[in-house]
Amino acid sequence: MFYSHHIDDALEAKVGPHGLPQAVFDRELARATPALDKIRQWRNDGTLPLLKLPAARDDIAAIRPHAEHFRKFEHLVVFGIGGSNLGGQTLVALKDHGFGPAKGHPKIWFMDNVDPATFAEMCERLPLERTGVFAISKSGTTAETLTQLYSLLPLLEAKVGKANLAKHLLVITEPKDNVLRRTAMRLGCPVLDHDPNIGGRYSVLSLVGLLPALIAGVDVAAVREGAASVLDPVLAAKEATGLAPAVGAALSVGLAKERGVHTTVLMPYCDRLGYFGFWFRQLWAESLGKDGKGTTPVRAMGTVDQHSQLQLYLGGPADKLFTVLILDTKGQGRPIPAAELGGDKSLAYLEGQGLGDLILAEADATAATLVKNGRPTRVIRLKTLDEKVMGALMMHYMLETMFAAELWGVDAFDQPAVEEGKILTRQYLSQRRRS
Amino acid sequence: MFYSHHIDDALEAKVGPHGLPQAVFDRELARATPALDKIRQWRNDGTLPLLKLPAARDDIAAIRPHAEHFRKFEHLVVFGIGGSNLGGQTLVALKDHGFGPAKGHPKIWFMDNVDPATFAEMCERLPLERTGVFAISKSGTTAETLTQLYSLLPLLEAKVGKANLAKHLLVITEPKDNVLRRTAMRLGCPVLDHDPNIGGRYSVLSLVGLLPALIAGVDVAAVREGAASVLDPVLAAKEATGLAPAVGAALSVGLAKERGVHTTVLMPYCDRLGYFGFWFRQLWAESLGKDGKGTTPVRAMGTVDQHSQLQLYLGGPADKLFTVLILDTKGQGRPIPAAELGGDKSLAYLEGQGLGDLILAEADATAATLVKNGRPTRVIRLKTLDEKVMGALMMHYMLETMFAAELWGVDAFDQPAVEEGKILTRQYLSQRRRS
Repeated sequence: MFYSHHIDDALEAKVGPHGLPQAVFDRELARATPALDKIRQWRNDGTLPLLKLPAARDDIAAIRPHAEHFRKFEHLVVFGIGGSNLGGQTLVALKDHGFGPAKGHPKIWFMDNVDPATFAEMCERLPLERTGVFAISKSGTTAETLTQLYSLLPLLEAKVGKANLAKHLLVITEPKDNVLRRTAMRLGCPVLDHDPNIGGRYSVLSLVGLLPALIAGVDVAAVREGAASVLDPVLAAKEATGLAPAVGAALSVGLAKERGVHTTVLMPYCDRLGYFGFWFRQLWAESLGKDGKGTTPVRAMGTVDQHSQLQLYLGGPADKLFTVLILDTKGQGRPIPAAELGGDKSLAYLEGQGLGDLILAEADATAATLVKNGRPTRVIRLKTLDEKVMGALMMHYMLETMFAAELWGVDAFDQPAVEEGKILTRQYLSQRRRS
Repeated sequence: MFYSHHIDDALEAKVGPHGLPQAVFDRELARATPALDKIRQWRNDGTLPLLKLPAARDDIAAIRPHAEHFRKFEHLVVFGIGGSNLGGQTLVALKDHGFGPAKGHPKIWFMDNVDPATFAEMCERLPLERTGVFAISKSGTTAETLTQLYSLLPLLEAKVGKANLAKHLLVITEPKDNVLRRTAMRLGCPVLDHDPNIGGRYSVLSLVGLLPALIAGVDVAAVREGAASVLDPVLAAKEATGLAPAVGAALSVGLAKERGVHTTVLMPYCDRLGYFGFWFRQLWAESLGKDGKGTTPVRAMGTVDQHSQLQLYLGGPADKLFTVLILDTKGQGRPIPAAELGGDKSLAYLEGQGLGDLILAEADATAATLVKNGRPTRVIRLKTLDEKVMGALMMHYMLETMFAAELWGVDAFDQPAVEEGKILTRQYLSQRRRS
């Protein structure tokens, strides 16, 4: 196991009246067992090809030449929205957490909005002649991705010339006729197939997430290996008991039903898991927020949000489940010698400690404080954070989301409510042009 | 007015049963009127010096020489946690929204965590000999800020020499004896006074927020001017009716009390307001989350979160108030000529439109869709986004938070619950060193 999962401090016996009664937990967990057969079936009949990805390697070999080509650029711009971007971003954060990419790799810019000011700055700042561009849209009709691409094309062509344009571009979309594919064919740039049966928020283990990761220097086979370490026991299990993703789902759904816990806070103590929090947020919200069900995912960050949100978590309404994700960083960072602390006794507690000791102590202290204040808290512990661990965490949460959907009786894979806004957007654009 | 504020679509008459009944709104708004006298008193007796800042200019003149000095560096690292960082970050985002600072200004890195991996990367990547360093802590005892500073000092000294060390450093802390101040005195670097009566989350209009902003090229006098445009009418008012910050507070508190609205979503359609969302999140959570009261602030981003959170907003539990912040971007971005769209009829709706038209249409469509689905929604509209508008928005939300605290009967300025975790952190560190 690449992580350990502790839920005792979320149960009534340990945390008091806001916690989940053992009997309710047991009931929900038992209800998760039938989902095992469904998951096996989804895997075997091809309904859910994502469940075959952890074991696959051939498709990685197939995208490697594209990775080699785009790695030569100085910058890579990825046009993609929501799930088309969050997975890749989460993986890339293993190699670039703010100060730039690993040496010999391009800086990857995940453009996930259509703000004209940001776009103008991007075009002014990036040397387009040394920039590669990905456009990712499963349907091939996403308004934002298309507008971004069409806004950039003339500028890119002006810099690199019509003959070279195709070398800078790559498109990922479903293997059927759509606007994005036709555009790619017309321009002569490579088009990779987005599996029609892998929705955006579940796409991180497919080429959508792995191609940018590969370009950033991430060991993507190890990501898949980590995912397999969580998936395989689920596929082999006869009952849900003891399966961490099912246990997590039973806890969440039980607390929502029984204790009015409407909010679920994911708080990693690790900057490289910052995007993981956003990735989880989409996965959970979009998969479960249906028929008045679901809980609101909140992405927090330790230690940052101790100084921003902890007062609310401890003193506000008791309507939240907390997941504290703790990475063992003991001994990391330069230990501060007593002599350098200026001889101040009030700093004695920092003597011989490094940043890793401080962040670890704060993580443990926050989890303990939440429990002391009667807030249901689960803890996920990591010994280290690498590709395998990231893959394991991602598969854990994808499966936990599927189990939770089964327990709530909603479809984990659709998003029926958002079409209305898309239709209205097109209407507004059409009306406003005419006026 | 630098913004317009529309709450009708959050009322029952417009949005249906999840909306606020007019009578409850009127009752809460009437209850906000007594707060006006308190606010005036806080301003006049010095309890709340922040309310004198919008009119002040001398203090800006006093920090300008420091801004000139640090502007010459290539990078500026700001060690500060929570309120010490979020305000500055929000203002700096007006000039640097991802692709780097304005020409002739340093890149500012707001280091708001103590992750050893991030810190190591920072030290490896930044040319420390061309890097300035701020350490900001009101109390002067913040563990994170001290550990960051003490972790960096030997490395910085090794690069620039003992004699030059002080030129790279600046400290902001309360004007009383504390560890950070003593450290600064020993090193011989400038120390600026943090007003003891301005808490971190309300500090953006003080030198804490304005000094980094000044260095980034932000017109900080204009920020103050914008703040004054919202504060002055409040200070002059006899009743809360018609005052946007009081109206917003009455809406929030009324919906929480009457309709079980536990979550408040702030969704700007503008990348430069991304940090504003995080700044608001701390302000609201830490000020109001007390005695079981308060609501959970959620920072969203349009259009991004349409593809991530909107399904939950529309289809999940109806326990949220939405504030959609819409910037008029009509006509911004290059209009895409029909000829360039490859002649595809399904793209006709994009002909002649630019990115600004698309994001504006999406903002309007999302607000309309929320309302159609019976979700209480308020809209804040901006004609433009500059320093004045940002100052106005910030003062709006600081005042709205104070009004809401009065309506809930909590202290907007303390954070009593977070001490326990701090004590435990020190205990853990001491125990672990000994073992």
